[in-house]
Amino acid sequence: MVAIGNASSTALDSATASDADRMARAALSRVIEPGDPATLKTFADLTPLEIWELLQTNAPGLERWSTRLPHVNPERDLEKARKAGARFVIPGDDEWPDQIDVLAEAGQQSRRGGVPYGLWVKGSPNLRQLLQSSVAMVGARACSSYGEHAAAELAAALGDHGTTIVSGGAYGIDAAAHRGALASTGTTIAVLACGVDVSYPRSNSALFDRIAGEGLLVSELPPGCAPTKLRFLARNRLIAAATQGTVVIEAAIRSGALNTAGWSEQCGRPVLAVPGPITSRMSEGTHLLIRERNATLATSVADILEAISPLGEHLTSYPHSPATPIDALDHDLRRTLDAVPVLRPSPSTRIATVAGLDHDTVQECLETLAQADLVTYEDSGWLLSTTHRRAP
Amino acid sequence: MVAIGNASSTALDSATASDADRMARAALSRVIEPGDPATLKTFADLTPLEIWELLQTNAPGLERWSTRLPHVNPERDLEKARKAGARFVIPGDDEWPDQIDVLAEAGQQSRRGGVPYGLWVKGSPNLRQLLQSSVAMVGARACSSYGEHAAAELAAALGDHGTTIVSGGAYGIDAAAHRGALASTGTTIAVLACGVDVSYPRSNSALFDRIAGEGLLVSELPPGCAPTKLRFLARNRLIAAATQGTVVIEAAIRSGALNTAGWSEQCGRPVLAVPGPITSRMSEGTHLLIRERNATLATSVADILEAISPLGEHLTSYPHSPATPIDALDHDLRRTLDAVPVLRPSPSTRIATVAGLDHDTVQECLETLAQADLVTYEDSGWLLSTTHRRAP
Repeated sequence: MVAIGNASSTALDSATASDADRMARAALSRVIEPGDPATLKTFADLTPLEIWELLQTNAPGLERWSTRLPHVNPERDLEKARKAGARFVIPGDDEWPDQIDVLAEAGQQSRRGGVPYGLWVKGSPNLRQLLQSSVAMVGARACSSYGEHAAAELAAALGDHGTTIVSGGAYGIDAAAHRGALASTGTTIAVLACGVDVSYPRSNSALFDRIAGEGLLVSELPPGCAPTKLRFLARNRLIAAATQGTVVIEAAIRSGALNTAGWSEQCGRPVLAVPGPITSRMSEGTHLLIRERNATLATSVADILEAISPLGEHLTSYPHSPATPIDALDHDLRRTLDAVPVLRPSPSTRIATVAGLDHDTVQECLETLAQADLVTYEDSGWLLSTTHRRAP
Repeated sequence: MVAIGNASSTALDSATASDADRMARAALSRVIEPGDPATLKTFADLTPLEIWELLQTNAPGLERWSTRLPHVNPERDLEKARKAGARFVIPGDDEWPDQIDVLAEAGQQSRRGGVPYGLWVKGSPNLRQLLQSSVAMVGARACSSYGEHAAAELAAALGDHGTTIVSGGAYGIDAAAHRGALASTGTTIAVLACGVDVSYPRSNSALFDRIAGEGLLVSELPPGCAPTKLRFLARNRLIAAATQGTVVIEAAIRSGALNTAGWSEQCGRPVLAVPGPITSRMSEGTHLLIRERNATLATSVADILEAISPLGEHLTSYPHSPATPIDALDHDLRRTLDAVPVLRPSPSTRIATVAGLDHDTVQECLETLAQADLVTYEDSGWLLSTTHRRAP
């Protein structure tokens, strides 16, 4: 049970109400499994405080939520978090990222979502501020070295551009994205399917320490919680909702990354996918997203920035290789040029026959081409200039 | 000058008219540069025979077409072709592929197209029949080994499916596509920017011999003609117009392959592009096509067949990896399963607490999971069955 004070001044009332809300939310974050469909259905119209008070009545029909009750102690969880260098951020806090409230609606559609009661956050930066310009970068655990390279490069370039990378805590693309961001001037957030004080997978613990040192570890699960398959799926909705768009880099056809992409679609955020060799199973998921699910093909940071920016900003200019002088020539000039020999000079009458143009036109063209230093007159005939011969 | 007979019977008249048309077209195929914009503009309303008769008048204003006239001898060209094992196919011939008549319109839009006066064809098969089910496969000369592999594999699989491959005669993707098709039960057509008796590039001559032996070499240029840059561009329109769609496999941003794709769009044919690593310059062109020009991303023969087939046929079923028994479980079953330990049996009350579900629900779930052989009861507790532990 949570002890709720009953101070009388208005200021204290407000503080108390807020404290009670925070306690209730901390409690619910341990009692209620993230994304539990029965909870969304049963308590749709209640505030967290009302839900928490109701659950404590142990009324009939609430058995589903009763088994964990004896073990719930939000004050202990908050203290445990504090000791681990973490805090519990709830709606109304300065740090709360309002964009994830989109999950209230997205959750109702699928009956699997819902806004988290709060977010356990470890690390110094302000969560809301870090997420203001942010991209989810997700993909396969068993990625190829190509995928790892692409993730690290894109994440680093986005970081240098001031865009925060958000990913999970897995091996493969997740870890490569974090490492890329940490190597840049930007920062990174890992959203976990376990407590922010739990290292899973354990061999990423050094990486988690670095992320908590420079960026943030975030979870809707209280300290000490272990990850489960369902928690990974529920976690994916947070990654999608918290960011301005999701970039998938290598994903098998069935994968958590495609699940995150699906949440991103449900939240109305753009989904981008990085293509790869068609010979790689790891790119099947990204090709599927582009072909069947209208994801934007992304090959560069410019593509990503364009997709997540307000309409008309950061428009990608695709690399058109520089036009050569020859590209600018009109049809007759090109035909004449095509007919000029490389080695042995040829008279203009011969060039006219080869080009299939009349002599006057060819004579005129040859003079224009000579002015552009593309052809040269030597030994009573025309041949390509050395400049032109060296041109690509 | 062409000698035109003046026999009097109707049958002969018809034969003669047809012969005259063929002679005129053979002559024009040497006089007029493929895709010459001035020709399209000046003679838009004349038949080939009328154009040919007009040109021979050497009237003022026709100087552009006069320089090659003295060298034109269609009978000699036809004889030369015959000796090289080639024939001259014109509209009205059984072999004429009507679909390329689309170039009459596509050419007028761009002033660079036009239907060829005829096609010089080397090889036994019937051109029209081979093209009935056909795909253009084009790409970079300086392709990567990935591109070469993808082209050969896709071409071979399309060939086995009875689809003819159509490409140019260049190194790289062109050659790989031909080789793939030749290795299959299908066949291949090389459309050249030079005479069908000319080997360009010379080191592909063994390949051209194989193509002429099993498939076809095709060109709108008469025997002996050398390739020029403009002829490659004009040739691209034929590849696009003759086929049901164009597949681009590796192409730099500026490349003949993108030019062919552009012609394919103008002819109303689908364009497909094979993605590749974003780290490869050779895939920049295909990614551009997908992202900016609405090309269909192609990873397999199924994708290509779906795009070139009448609506609703050959629908690609994307590889969804087989659903595991676990995927079929509902939320509570999955939560219960997630809470069952791997090694040390746990009582159902403990599992209920971990799962955060009431004991009755968990008990029911455990029994269902046991029936599916996912969990097992041992030593007064539940643990994952060995079957489940082995599952991915």
